[in-house]
Amino acid sequence: MSQAIRALFFDVFGTLVDWRNSIAREAEAVLRPFGSALDGAVFADAWRAEYQPAMEQVRQGQAPFRKLDLLHRQNLERILPRFGVGLLEEAVLEQLTLAWHRLDAWPDSAPGLQRLKRRFVIAPVSNGNISLLVALARRNGFPWDAVLGAEVAGDYKPKPRVYLAACEALDLPPEQCLMVAAHASDLSAAAACGLRTAFVSRPHEYGPGKGSPAPHGAVDLSVTSLEHLALELGV
Amino acid sequence: MSQAIRALFFDVFGTLVDWRNSIAREAEAVLRPFGSALDGAVFADAWRAEYQPAMEQVRQGQAPFRKLDLLHRQNLERILPRFGVGLLEEAVLEQLTLAWHRLDAWPDSAPGLQRLKRRFVIAPVSNGNISLLVALARRNGFPWDAVLGAEVAGDYKPKPRVYLAACEALDLPPEQCLMVAAHASDLSAAAACGLRTAFVSRPHEYGPGKGSPAPHGAVDLSVTSLEHLALELGV
Repeated sequence: MSQAIRALFFDVFGTLVDWRNSIAREAEAVLRPFGSALDGAVFADAWRAEYQPAMEQVRQGQAPFRKLDLLHRQNLERILPRFGVGLLEEAVLEQLTLAWHRLDAWPDSAPGLQRLKRRFVIAPVSNGNISLLVALARRNGFPWDAVLGAEVAGDYKPKPRVYLAACEALDLPPEQCLMVAAHASDLSAAAACGLRTAFVSRPHEYGPGKGSPAPHGAVDLSVTSLEHLALELGV
Repeated sequence: MSQAIRALFFDVFGTLVDWRNSIAREAEAVLRPFGSALDGAVFADAWRAEYQPAMEQVRQGQAPFRKLDLLHRQNLERILPRFGVGLLEEAVLEQLTLAWHRLDAWPDSAPGLQRLKRRFVIAPVSNGNISLLVALARRNGFPWDAVLGAEVAGDYKPKPRVYLAACEALDLPPEQCLMVAAHASDLSAAAACGLRTAFVSRPHEYGPGKGSPAPHGAVDLSVTSLEHLALELGV
């Protein structure tokens, strides 16, 4: 299969970066000066739980496309009262919203991407906005060839437009593009558009032992790390 | 000034890459097997002469936005008869069109960008399409943080939308973005949008001694290479 593949597209949240532990740490650090003793992991889960519903409004056409940073901000304001956090200044809300720009990678992500880039064009096809993806890349050393995904497509995964816009940006037919993700819904949507698929297991994404250890449904490849993916692709 | 700047935007054709000598070499190499003995430099100039008129139709709204690769292909078919080149197969036309994906950089471009990236977010803001810019970056080692420009904006420079879309993609106000180019028209259009400007002299862009050695009009910085730019910005 690796002969036919020209580009690799990557999901980011959960697949390349550990959003849960990173948001937990950032939220605790930002809110501690305000007397908050919240449980960062619970806070991270609550914030992330608002993620799909907010995007769903855009996918359904009930709201115009807006960057994920804006959805993160709205979702933050929705959950803060539940954690007993009082009124915060604009600058603090902004700093907390941008916690999603300060996520740390799983250890294999950067070395794996560097290796894969030798042979393939690599790009994130994420629901994160461009500035967020640039910040994560600079922080973690992701050597992207281009930043594709929701903001370039003007819609959110798993809408077909997002995968197809990425293929079109690189002038490649879908069958020459491999979508890499830790989530079955992302991979099945990509496959429905004609892309090839690789599942990466991230067994601790939602907490210790709370992640997807194996793919649901058919995928072209199933690996346990990006280094493993590079091996499978013969890089 | 460097304190206030967060991102550097780069023109590509002429500013980072030597399109004229590269196209001359590629055209001669692709067409030689067909008995053509064309003068590559004259051919490159003729092809490039169709560049602005083709984009102008898009800028004026007389034609929908199309990738530069498509304009290059149309322009190629327009000039080929002038060079006595007969009917070519589709694969050859395609290979020749993609000569613009095989341009070589000026010697200072890659080391300068690598140095500038340490401090600033760097992105091309070019009229080239994403796949073209990715190919040039992979060929020449340009370590872009993101690929911005005409295809992301859906219009061609020097339309304001292209510069402003790049700033918006990075969530930066124009005054925190520096447009770097070897062409006065590009810089004056960026300045009119509120961006800062840096002129890079490329005195041989259009042939020996045929380039802009000095800026026309006011710019914030004027340098002779990207290494020089890095020095001026204190990197």
